[in-house]
Amino acid sequence: MLVNLFTHFPDAVLREEAETFDALLSAPGIKIERIISTGQATPAGSWYCQAENEWVILLRGSAGLRFESETRTRVLYPGDFVNIPAHSRHRVEWTDASMPTVWLVVHYAGADN
Amino acid sequence: MLVNLFTHFPDAVLREEAETFDALLSAPGIKIERIISTGQATPAGSWYCQAENEWVILLRGSAGLRFESETRTRVLYPGDFVNIPAHSRHRVEWTDASMPTVWLVVHYAGADN
Repeated sequence: MLVNLFTHFPDAVLREEAETFDALLSAPGIKIERIISTGQATPAGSWYCQAENEWVILLRGSAGLRFESETRTRVLYPGDFVNIPAHSRHRVEWTDASMPTVWLVVHYAGADN
Repeated sequence: MLVNLFTHFPDAVLREEAETFDALLSAPGIKIERIISTGQATPAGSWYCQAENEWVILLRGSAGLRFESETRTRVLYPGDFVNIPAHSRHRVEWTDASMPTVWLVVHYAGADN
């Protein structure tokens, strides 16, 4: 069972094959997960647009996060967090190529779900 | 406005005067906050017992977390997380004396609130 965010990395991360997703908590109206990226980005031309709100903090590595409503990519370093309201179109432009990028993501229902 | 968990420490932390609490997100059914401890502990003989559920991850420093239902203190290091269901009596036995301890706490209503 995963009990530490930084010491248990899945094999896919070690092989830099794919992003990995681990559920840390799942309860009514809330889901907390760890995502580890190893250089992946959102496919060109694609945007995420979720029905749920999402609060994200980057804890290791770095990433470029772009909102459709903004002209510039936000560069995130460890400790940087951002709230992504439901239906906000956004994409990950890049993630760190030199080390795993560890995200902690809190999906929450909020008022209008 | 606080946008990074690790680069903006309140004066009280720098002076090691008191624990500090910063709200990072507040929405119906959920509150996310940063707590920074500088050696503080729960007063002797006291227990926390909250009406809300709480998911906690320690990100810097270290701490001893004790549940009334357990005989041993859990020692937490960066990346260690724990879910504390509502009404679980617990206390912080100690926090790191040599550096600030940074907690990320997600309070959530869950099913029975």
